[in-house]
Amino acid sequence: MEPFGIALLGCGTVGTGVAKMLLEHPDRLTARAGRKLELRRIVVDDAKKPRPSGIPSSLFTTNLRAVIDDPAVQVVVEVVGGIDWAKQAVLDLLAAGKHIVTANKALLATHGGEIFDAGRRHGQAIAFEASVGGGIPIIGALCQGLAANQILSLQGILNGTCNYILTCMTENGCSYADMLADAQRKGYAEADPTMDVDGTDSAHKLAILVQIAFGVALPLSAIQRRGIAGIDLLDIRFAKELGYTIKLLAEAWLEPAACGLAPHAKPQSAKCDQLAMHVSPVMLRQNAPLALVRDAYNALFVVGDAVGSTLYYGRGAGQMPTASAVVADLIDMAVGRAQQTFRSLKLWSGNHRNIVVRDPSTMRSRFYLRMMVEDRPGVMADITRILANHQISIASVIQHEALEHADGESEIVPLIIMTHTVPTGSFRAALDEIDRLVSVRPPSVYYPVGD
Amino acid sequence: MEPFGIALLGCGTVGTGVAKMLLEHPDRLTARAGRKLELRRIVVDDAKKPRPSGIPSSLFTTNLRAVIDDPAVQVVVEVVGGIDWAKQAVLDLLAAGKHIVTANKALLATHGGEIFDAGRRHGQAIAFEASVGGGIPIIGALCQGLAANQILSLQGILNGTCNYILTCMTENGCSYADMLADAQRKGYAEADPTMDVDGTDSAHKLAILVQIAFGVALPLSAIQRRGIAGIDLLDIRFAKELGYTIKLLAEAWLEPAACGLAPHAKPQSAKCDQLAMHVSPVMLRQNAPLALVRDAYNALFVVGDAVGSTLYYGRGAGQMPTASAVVADLIDMAVGRAQQTFRSLKLWSGNHRNIVVRDPSTMRSRFYLRMMVEDRPGVMADITRILANHQISIASVIQHEALEHADGESEIVPLIIMTHTVPTGSFRAALDEIDRLVSVRPPSVYYPVGD
Repeated sequence: MEPFGIALLGCGTVGTGVAKMLLEHPDRLTARAGRKLELRRIVVDDAKKPRPSGIPSSLFTTNLRAVIDDPAVQVVVEVVGGIDWAKQAVLDLLAAGKHIVTANKALLATHGGEIFDAGRRHGQAIAFEASVGGGIPIIGALCQGLAANQILSLQGILNGTCNYILTCMTENGCSYADMLADAQRKGYAEADPTMDVDGTDSAHKLAILVQIAFGVALPLSAIQRRGIAGIDLLDIRFAKELGYTIKLLAEAWLEPAACGLAPHAKPQSAKCDQLAMHVSPVMLRQNAPLALVRDAYNALFVVGDAVGSTLYYGRGAGQMPTASAVVADLIDMAVGRAQQTFRSLKLWSGNHRNIVVRDPSTMRSRFYLRMMVEDRPGVMADITRILANHQISIASVIQHEALEHADGESEIVPLIIMTHTVPTGSFRAALDEIDRLVSVRPPSVYYPVGD
Repeated sequence: MEPFGIALLGCGTVGTGVAKMLLEHPDRLTARAGRKLELRRIVVDDAKKPRPSGIPSSLFTTNLRAVIDDPAVQVVVEVVGGIDWAKQAVLDLLAAGKHIVTANKALLATHGGEIFDAGRRHGQAIAFEASVGGGIPIIGALCQGLAANQILSLQGILNGTCNYILTCMTENGCSYADMLADAQRKGYAEADPTMDVDGTDSAHKLAILVQIAFGVALPLSAIQRRGIAGIDLLDIRFAKELGYTIKLLAEAWLEPAACGLAPHAKPQSAKCDQLAMHVSPVMLRQNAPLALVRDAYNALFVVGDAVGSTLYYGRGAGQMPTASAVVADLIDMAVGRAQQTFRSLKLWSGNHRNIVVRDPSTMRSRFYLRMMVEDRPGVMADITRILANHQISIASVIQHEALEHADGESEIVPLIIMTHTVPTGSFRAALDEIDRLVSVRPPSVYYPVGD
């Protein structure tokens, strides 16, 4: 069988990993793909930059046309990142009759519809296992392994940088700022880590998963997101005291239309038609499966109506784990499977179920609320009165004795309240009122509480 | 597109689940398969037995020929279980031009070579996602998602009955006999649970995984196995005291030819050429990922040379989880993917890597050893002398004070020794000598110790 011709766009961390794998394990990959996987070109923007040894310099080009015009290139791996240049390159390559393998979640989350339409129009396939969860075969599980199920919920730790930072804060009591610097030193966080820590990267990945699991194409703005920037050690410690761990979760779940199910209570039926979604720090019970995912690892918890609960765990980023997913897609392309998957899935086709995205204010959850209050009579009465007025029931309270009182003045102490399940809208309204009390130092801090 | 015609062999728990799913969710499955999945026949051995309501009685037949002779049946789901009848039926169906989807691990583990050869000869495909790990898409992960990797090790909890029993013994202090009866009442254990509790079922599943991950076809007898039958609460309790949990693991790992790597130390290189395997109760550290898998859940920990550590978790048995895997295979068949996977994988083809199965006596491990000894001077000296003679180094010892002494006679007390890493052969030889000491009541109990 003739070799399967491959080009790379980009030769950063992941691109180098893919090139190394293709060049170092030809026999293994030929056996699995049934034909040679032949790396023919690597498109880079700077021809002069030193490249890793072991990759022949003859492969490098700065000219995308060298790939477009090479009829022996059948598939192009887009690992250049970013959106604008990558999008135009992918559209040009699809038009030129090349299949695409991409790790670019931002590109798919923002322009998936246009790109998949172009793929269909030109009879080319797009594979994207590496775009979510690094080397963990999450996309394959949702597209194939769980294809008999209606997915009921997805709950994921999808950003390794955030999970690394939260793990260190929880286990070693380090500050957010210190841990962010550490993550950057270790190469977990990007030079500009904004998209990691503000939840955007997780939202990109959730948008892709939601597209597969629920057939819903939506603008990224439909996913409410809070990141971990500025998360306070105080809340990590109180979470621990209460038996919880704070994790940045990307979650989506079907809800019965008007039943008011708590987000973390697993829906029991597939007849739901409202989709709730968010990216948020969530307090999970310390023994919940996702609470046990440490460091830069990722995990996805998937509930299907037939299969029940399943979990997928592994490295969500890094050179070789991501290359593992890219090369798996290349093998799938060489075998011809990826093309069939692409045809049968109809992702971003506008042909999806009529699922309504649930108004975030109607989502129901338990909440952790930490207020900084003056340590004097009447404060607790004021706060609990406001909660009562909003029909918010209190599950537990922590207020420790203040260690010492400054002369004359009231000490400011943390007051923690865990609520029972309430609509998010009522909770936020109560919070606004609480933060206007003279005895409370705003802003108070709150997190949804999961299983 | 024309409907995809399906027949079932068997209508027990799993068969009923598959039939229900095909009959109750036609729209969902048609959308995912790109064509109607049409259930045309169900072959059963007793036409008079009452069948679940909702399955039209016209589908049932006792005659396999009704399936063989129906040109509209393109794939047959074998969920009848057992070996002899199932094997002949599968061979006849392949010869008649039907693809096969099977959940029968015993059949594949014992006759996989013959069946896959027949599939290739007749141009038909065999899919078997449901044979290992129930609804968890483990086979798909190994065959596709991790295809770029050389797998370095597999570590699985693959029998839900055993894990359920061990969980209850560990958490509630119940006896083995009580828990086995309970598992049977709950339907986790078969009427004859021998194959579950003696490790045979786990060995069947490991043989299938090893075939995919390492390309090694071997007789089942090559997998050393110990089950959980008769496991003693005493050892569960001492494990706990030492910070460990006992799990029945099915393990396979590549070892450097003669380096003496401990089995639970992860091999660092893919250049190994010896395969070590066993099914055994293993003591795992309480916070190891697999130690946290409770009740009837299954999990597989897979280490690949590129992807690193990954884990897959979910229900390993049960009607709808297993049906989820079977119907995923049917969708793959209808789309045409399963046929390509079958062709490209060359499983059981005799075309595999030249991997040597490691002599179990040369495998190296740490060991937990529990002896029942007379509580008198010199016993510890005798035992530690024997261990020293075999170059076995002691990591820790537990001997609690006996609560009371019977008049004149020596009390029999448990003595626990944890060894450092030693060759299994040396350990067993020392154990034989220890069990011949007059002050020791044989047989002493031992388990390998993992991470």
